[in-house]
Amino acid sequence: MQLEDRIKKVKEVIKQWKKEGLTVGFIPTMGYLHEGHESLIKKASEENDRVIVSIFVNPIQFGPNEDLENYPKDLDRDTTLCLNAGADLIFNPDKEEMYFDDFCTIVNMNGLTENLCGKSRPSHFAGVCTVVSKLFNIVTPDKAYFGQKDAQQLAVIKRMVRDLSIDVEIVGCSIIREEDGLAKSSRNTYLSKEERIAAIVLNKSLKLAKESLEKGERSSNNIINSIKNTIDSEKLAKIDYIQVVDALSMENIQEIKGPTLIAIAIYIGKTRLIDNFTFKM
Amino acid sequence: MQLEDRIKKVKEVIKQWKKEGLTVGFIPTMGYLHEGHESLIKKASEENDRVIVSIFVNPIQFGPNEDLENYPKDLDRDTTLCLNAGADLIFNPDKEEMYFDDFCTIVNMNGLTENLCGKSRPSHFAGVCTVVSKLFNIVTPDKAYFGQKDAQQLAVIKRMVRDLSIDVEIVGCSIIREEDGLAKSSRNTYLSKEERIAAIVLNKSLKLAKESLEKGERSSNNIINSIKNTIDSEKLAKIDYIQVVDALSMENIQEIKGPTLIAIAIYIGKTRLIDNFTFKM
Repeated sequence: MQLEDRIKKVKEVIKQWKKEGLTVGFIPTMGYLHEGHESLIKKASEENDRVIVSIFVNPIQFGPNEDLENYPKDLDRDTTLCLNAGADLIFNPDKEEMYFDDFCTIVNMNGLTENLCGKSRPSHFAGVCTVVSKLFNIVTPDKAYFGQKDAQQLAVIKRMVRDLSIDVEIVGCSIIREEDGLAKSSRNTYLSKEERIAAIVLNKSLKLAKESLEKGERSSNNIINSIKNTIDSEKLAKIDYIQVVDALSMENIQEIKGPTLIAIAIYIGKTRLIDNFTFKM
Repeated sequence: MQLEDRIKKVKEVIKQWKKEGLTVGFIPTMGYLHEGHESLIKKASEENDRVIVSIFVNPIQFGPNEDLENYPKDLDRDTTLCLNAGADLIFNPDKEEMYFDDFCTIVNMNGLTENLCGKSRPSHFAGVCTVVSKLFNIVTPDKAYFGQKDAQQLAVIKRMVRDLSIDVEIVGCSIIREEDGLAKSSRNTYLSKEERIAAIVLNKSLKLAKESLEKGERSSNNIINSIKNTIDSEKLAKIDYIQVVDALSMENIQEIKGPTLIAIAIYIGKTRLIDNFTFKM
């Protein structure tokens, strides 16, 4: 497995692979990899001849008071995980390699980003779309893999790829969870012991919502209130958002009629965690 | 020469060419081609195995009170010109093929677009960057050709390509002029006989500015005033902007020290025309 930090070098390696007719799978990450990322890398290595993982804590997708400075890093551990999961190359650029001082291009999106995480984090998806566009141009993958945990991100990337006719297949992959149901996240590492226990409430609240949907509940308000009640029962939890939206447009809906995303963002202490599920009738 | 209106078909053709190891040159246009475009196509056909010309009047780069509806069209004439100049494929999509109803991705730029045409036409360069990104993703050219007449556009595209690591070489080509000095433009066709004569004032004013620069003038204000006086002497002309900017950053400068763009936009009657030259010391 190769570890590269230069755009030029990565492009050269990939051009050679393409010349040999090899297919390329790509997993863009911010590092501090967990079993969620591992499942993406494994899937990519089953479906492609070569697999590239990028590790880049992308500054432009963080807001001014977010956790950019504290975002966890462990390149040695990440390297081992990538190797074992079947990656062929890690692309690990620094900020200067990705963004010149006078970098001024932005890829952004209307509509899809106005709700959910886009509402709580106003410049977040511009940062995501810009870096993912750039990474796609560097890696030119045949397939790229994203976790369903960041459901809005997945929808945004799919839309961007469709709108801009980018030649890549976007593969969405299931959420990987801890045994007690908490969705795997690099940010789980921020949680104290007590907070870690409290964090179970995210998945618990969604499970209850899912049960009531399966029993026939179709009112978004009732679903939101049920989730709210569960979250409120946990002292350490503070709601950022609880939303029921159309799974394609990410717009709020009143009545559940078609594919629907139920998504939440909850602070456990200072740590913001997200979870979701898609309900298909 | 092929004429195609479907993205999918164009991608197929180009994939086949690339498989055969052929290089692709690309000229994005809005049609109603003139000798300026012709010079780009000829240059592209000298430098590449295959040449694609896109003809698409891109609605999202026009402002609400601009000339989208009246923009001139003549596909038969364009086809003949492309064929004679050495093009292999014309990509001529309609609006629906390029933009789905729920298209919502935007490629935009800070800084470089705040001056000059970006100031007069606030959403113009977002429209240009978005369509050119999409066209680059469809055509995946080795080289793409743009005229120096749209100097700010050329600078913006170069920056976008650098920022987003797009794998294409941008080739800027000299302005092609009528015998009396007027820069060739599809919009010249809007001019009445009287206006056509009046339009000579654009190039005339720049020629005088160039002469004074060559004689040692280094004050932007003096250059601007000299151009202004020439333009004002023509009754049918109305100034949109006269600017002296750094040729890379497109920012206004007071004193001319390095590569400098002197750019003007002038209304002749209702027709907005642009012209410019770059002064290298």
